[in-house]
Amino acid sequence: MQKLMPEEAVALIQPRDTVGIGGFTSAGAPSTLGSALLAYAQQCWKNGRPLALNIITGASTLSSIDGGLAECNGIRTRSPYQADRLLRQKINDESVRFWDFHLSDFPQALRSGIWGPIDFALIEAESVDLQGRIILTSGVGITPTLCHLAKKIIVELRDDSTMQFQGIHDIYEVRLPPRTLPIPLTQVAQRIGTEYVQVDPHKIVGVVQGNRPREHAILDHPTPESNRIGEHILRFFAMETHLGRFPKTLLPLQVGVGNVANALMQRLTEVDGPQYEVYSEVLQDAIIEGVLSGRIRMASGGAFAVTKSCFQTMRTHWETLRVKTLLRPQEITNHPEIIRRLGIIAINTALEVDLWGNVNSTHVCGRQMMNGIGGSGDFARNAYLTIFATPSTAKNGAISAIVPLCSHVDHIDHDVDVVVTEYGLADLRGKTPRERAVCIIENCAHPNYREALQACITSDRAHIPIDLSQAHRFHLNFLEQGKML
Amino acid sequence: MQKLMPEEAVALIQPRDTVGIGGFTSAGAPSTLGSALLAYAQQCWKNGRPLALNIITGASTLSSIDGGLAECNGIRTRSPYQADRLLRQKINDESVRFWDFHLSDFPQALRSGIWGPIDFALIEAESVDLQGRIILTSGVGITPTLCHLAKKIIVELRDDSTMQFQGIHDIYEVRLPPRTLPIPLTQVAQRIGTEYVQVDPHKIVGVVQGNRPREHAILDHPTPESNRIGEHILRFFAMETHLGRFPKTLLPLQVGVGNVANALMQRLTEVDGPQYEVYSEVLQDAIIEGVLSGRIRMASGGAFAVTKSCFQTMRTHWETLRVKTLLRPQEITNHPEIIRRLGIIAINTALEVDLWGNVNSTHVCGRQMMNGIGGSGDFARNAYLTIFATPSTAKNGAISAIVPLCSHVDHIDHDVDVVVTEYGLADLRGKTPRERAVCIIENCAHPNYREALQACITSDRAHIPIDLSQAHRFHLNFLEQGKML
Repeated sequence: MQKLMPEEAVALIQPRDTVGIGGFTSAGAPSTLGSALLAYAQQCWKNGRPLALNIITGASTLSSIDGGLAECNGIRTRSPYQADRLLRQKINDESVRFWDFHLSDFPQALRSGIWGPIDFALIEAESVDLQGRIILTSGVGITPTLCHLAKKIIVELRDDSTMQFQGIHDIYEVRLPPRTLPIPLTQVAQRIGTEYVQVDPHKIVGVVQGNRPREHAILDHPTPESNRIGEHILRFFAMETHLGRFPKTLLPLQVGVGNVANALMQRLTEVDGPQYEVYSEVLQDAIIEGVLSGRIRMASGGAFAVTKSCFQTMRTHWETLRVKTLLRPQEITNHPEIIRRLGIIAINTALEVDLWGNVNSTHVCGRQMMNGIGGSGDFARNAYLTIFATPSTAKNGAISAIVPLCSHVDHIDHDVDVVVTEYGLADLRGKTPRERAVCIIENCAHPNYREALQACITSDRAHIPIDLSQAHRFHLNFLEQGKML
Repeated sequence: MQKLMPEEAVALIQPRDTVGIGGFTSAGAPSTLGSALLAYAQQCWKNGRPLALNIITGASTLSSIDGGLAECNGIRTRSPYQADRLLRQKINDESVRFWDFHLSDFPQALRSGIWGPIDFALIEAESVDLQGRIILTSGVGITPTLCHLAKKIIVELRDDSTMQFQGIHDIYEVRLPPRTLPIPLTQVAQRIGTEYVQVDPHKIVGVVQGNRPREHAILDHPTPESNRIGEHILRFFAMETHLGRFPKTLLPLQVGVGNVANALMQRLTEVDGPQYEVYSEVLQDAIIEGVLSGRIRMASGGAFAVTKSCFQTMRTHWETLRVKTLLRPQEITNHPEIIRRLGIIAINTALEVDLWGNVNSTHVCGRQMMNGIGGSGDFARNAYLTIFATPSTAKNGAISAIVPLCSHVDHIDHDVDVVVTEYGLADLRGKTPRERAVCIIENCAHPNYREALQACITSDRAHIPIDLSQAHRFHLNFLEQGKML
């Protein structure tokens, strides 16, 4: 296999090519190739020939790609998810075409051909051998699918590699209908695939030595709000177990990305109780801590999206982690078949929740994209129980997270069982729309907003007793005067 | 087993009991028990002691139950779906509590305990033996789950039974997490279960002789609009096959309930082409015709929801139907695991579609419930390709089915690939929101509405360039003056 300098490797890429980046979030993404691609894109832009690539990834990716490339017209089209400030701006001024996607669906969409051919896969690896067996690193995402579909593969080998990730991965690819078979996974800890990605070695057009530092996750400290949200959820778990509706061993947990999720996992790890399992997308710091403390029996995810200090800790515990953690492709971490089967309890963050139980995860005031739907729909629709959490207000109280009607709907009321803010928890199951509205206002809304929310419920009867002319005042007010009331 | 008169059997039921009705739509529902229950409920109501039952079913059910019982305060709570004019009215004046549900989810919800105990299952059967083996009739729905969970079972045996349905059913029950296993179904024609429902015979508190005529489906003739919608879809299928994105044998089709769906299936059966398969909820007339003509290789569904004349035809073709049709529980017909695996092409009807690709299937002007979400979400989310069809206008043009923003969202843009009206077909895949809006207006909207729709798109940039203050004018106009413009 040909060794190339990073700048030689990325120079193979032509304007308007479709380029897939391996990994999930920045975990497992090729940071040296990312930086080289950015430098190349900047050069192309200066030369009046912007790269305008179609960039596809597992989820979000390196800031050199999403933010960097976006700045120099390096991205024409982007799928399926992003979380970068600069790219978000480009998407919202419509200079980058963004097609967000349920993460579990994306590999099948690529296989089906609707995205067109994939020119390059840029991936990070621990090792690659002459038979084309590639051991991945800290994130999987759509890497196996990219490797199968891309015409050419460029591999970045980390020069600080100690093969620590070997044995962590369980690589399984789903076939396209009509040849799809049952995915045999029935337990969080079960292995169904290989430790490596098998590729056609002739497609590897270059191997690059990686020397750029990893991009680590950054987590804020838990806030009083996130701690209270965690307390409400723990109390609810205890009650459901008491009522016999959760098994005593709990069910596998999925928790979304971010501080609220991490704080909840921290609390869950602190309190007494039986061991439990995690079947999630990203494994954040608190999950690693739970695994190392013994509270979490097994954690299956798609990436270690951990802070630098957590990553340091992990370096000395690979023996444990190799037994108690697993990384899988996102098609498996997020697959409806598996989420239903395992009976996942899903906890994700909402941007806003309306009185009827609909959730907006993506669009501010129905117009401005935040990040994308990501895996939230995969989990919310198929989980045994779906919880959405959010602080009750944002922007110092100018925005209420509880609104009369979501300005954009990502999760319909049928997929939302429980809503929780720092004020309390609303169990929406078995309630009519009017009962839900009362329950959410009383338990979750910030007191300053309760009266205005109540005024959007009509006294005249309807299955959804909403006052349509009032319902969008919250958002229109915000657009006009910067606050919802 | 004790033989009872219908009126004796239903008199076992107490006010506020939870009663499950077998079958799917009126197909397979116990019509004699239904009539007796209605008479009993009317008597209770006259005596000032209304029954106020919690009624659970597969989907919609007998008009004696949904319409009849609703009229005499016989229903307090109803799940997961209905399609009756009178019950709809009661739901919308909030005198019946309605909790609609994804049909695939409902059996698991019952098993999980959140619906509370089920007092009675009222089911129609071809036969029942002393070992508790029950052969069902023309619809399955949640009957197996009801039989397992209900404290008491009342069986209605049809007195015109000729055991014609024996061998048609494939009964398989999914277990509750954490003991759920892969569902082994990988082919439309595959059998994975038993021909009968196994119950504890001691739970059968009465067997009733059925003598009421069946309730048959009623279908209107295809309209020029539904024929044109069918033509657009057929042209699209041909193009996708030509592009290699559909296999030459097509993929299994799911089509929703109603005239548009039936007309499409009629057209598909008429035109030349290879045999295809159906994996759907209800099997309507055109599907039976396709099976009998040999155009449909295999049709798997949850019920024969056919007209009286089609049912007459079926009587003379049981040998063929027993080989080429199968009835399954709704948990299997609608299961995300199976829909994904088989790669279903799903065609369902929309109440309204907005410019961004969101679909409203349930709520008129965001307030009044039509029927419920039914299985549309199961199919739309998990299908290989999802199509929503609707005539472009309703009420003689006073209502546009294409609106700036859905007044209620049941299917989010991520789950909607194609929209089709009599004017044409909009392929939304790979398009940004602005591109989708233009495509839907140009291809699908009625010409009278195109300008007004265009006016709801802002020229200032946003990922979703919607004018929020204009967006709800369509619905507010309709509420105020009976027409959207």
